[in-house]
Amino acid sequence: MRTGTGAGMPQRGAVGAEERIRAAAVRLWSERGFHGVGIRELAEEAGLSSATLYHYMGTKEDLLADVMSRGLRRLVLAAERVTQQRAGAGPRMNALVQLHVLTHALRPRETRVVDGELRALSGDRRGGVMSLRDEYERYWRATIDEGRASGAFRVEAPGMARLALLEMCTGVARWYDPGGPMALSEVALGHAQLASRVLGAEELELVDEVDWCRGLVGEIWSGPGGG
Amino acid sequence: MRTGTGAGMPQRGAVGAEERIRAAAVRLWSERGFHGVGIRELAEEAGLSSATLYHYMGTKEDLLADVMSRGLRRLVLAAERVTQQRAGAGPRMNALVQLHVLTHALRPRETRVVDGELRALSGDRRGGVMSLRDEYERYWRATIDEGRASGAFRVEAPGMARLALLEMCTGVARWYDPGGPMALSEVALGHAQLASRVLGAEELELVDEVDWCRGLVGEIWSGPGGG
Repeated sequence: MRTGTGAGMPQRGAVGAEERIRAAAVRLWSERGFHGVGIRELAEEAGLSSATLYHYMGTKEDLLADVMSRGLRRLVLAAERVTQQRAGAGPRMNALVQLHVLTHALRPRETRVVDGELRALSGDRRGGVMSLRDEYERYWRATIDEGRASGAFRVEAPGMARLALLEMCTGVARWYDPGGPMALSEVALGHAQLASRVLGAEELELVDEVDWCRGLVGEIWSGPGGG
Repeated sequence: MRTGTGAGMPQRGAVGAEERIRAAAVRLWSERGFHGVGIRELAEEAGLSSATLYHYMGTKEDLLADVMSRGLRRLVLAAERVTQQRAGAGPRMNALVQLHVLTHALRPRETRVVDGELRALSGDRRGGVMSLRDEYERYWRATIDEGRASGAFRVEAPGMARLALLEMCTGVARWYDPGGPMALSEVALGHAQLASRVLGAEELELVDEVDWCRGLVGEIWSGPGGG
């Protein structure tokens, strides 16, 4: 694939077109859902013909699988970074929760598509996206298991606790309002505290990871396409 | 409005048509979202012409507001019943959580539309649905406030805890699989336990309200239209 034509210039060629298509898809799907947007509208939003869009991205389902996979790879990449840089189940879970909350609050459109459109996929595409989602959740699972093994966490049904925590933190994207009364850092730290309660780790010293996670989200989500 | 023509007979007339339209809307919208289904498909699914559908239900947005309002009134009715029949913040919160989880697991299609389509509404219709949602959440808010006042709950940010709990419990509809390894009663009780942790009420004696809540959901959600 050719790269863009330089800083400050509109992107041209395959990479520019693909980026524009993915950005258009995220914009429209996050507003009206995968089934609510036709291929012609997607092409129009990206400033291309339907035939050009098809040439670059294949069917609408191909494009959805591509968008969801890229989003999930970014989530995985960030979770991997947390796991490398934060030792011990408590500090790692604390950072994973703050990262998840910040990602969902700062990238609500991308995460809405990633979290909400799995049912629109079928067959291999669905399988591929599900295994990336499992890969992300494995960081949570491993951290909870480690905390139970060390005695840092006391939780009877770790699988259910993991799902409950993920839903709780993902939910921030549904209710958080950047213009509302709660600061995002307060929401992220507040959820880390609730997570420590859910995991029976109340003695856990909460560390403010908001700035670090914000930097990570900025670095991982702002570049083109993510993998 | 006329009532149905008798037990065992297909419903006819206005009530039968309206019921069929709402059922068709819930089926299709829960699969493909509000924006993913046209008025003609809705009419076809209900076995009516578009003109007849319009005659009974107005625009697609009118129909969505009607479906969402009916679902929310059922949630409110059930929460009201819990509040009347369970005294004290601990036992009431315990029952509210189990009720919410069971409602979302047993009525995933209706609750998916109720929880997921607010952004599709605008103006007065949105306002009406939002105030019904607030009415439902007020039972949770009042119970948390009561628990804090009595010392039964220890929670610093009660508004955030309420939202986090609602998202956690609503999320059950997204991952719970009736054919999967976890029994629904286990999920409901497990979430009540996690909620008591979130609210800092670990000493709370958990009561199994699954059968009672199941009966309540059956009673309130199976009759026609809910108000």
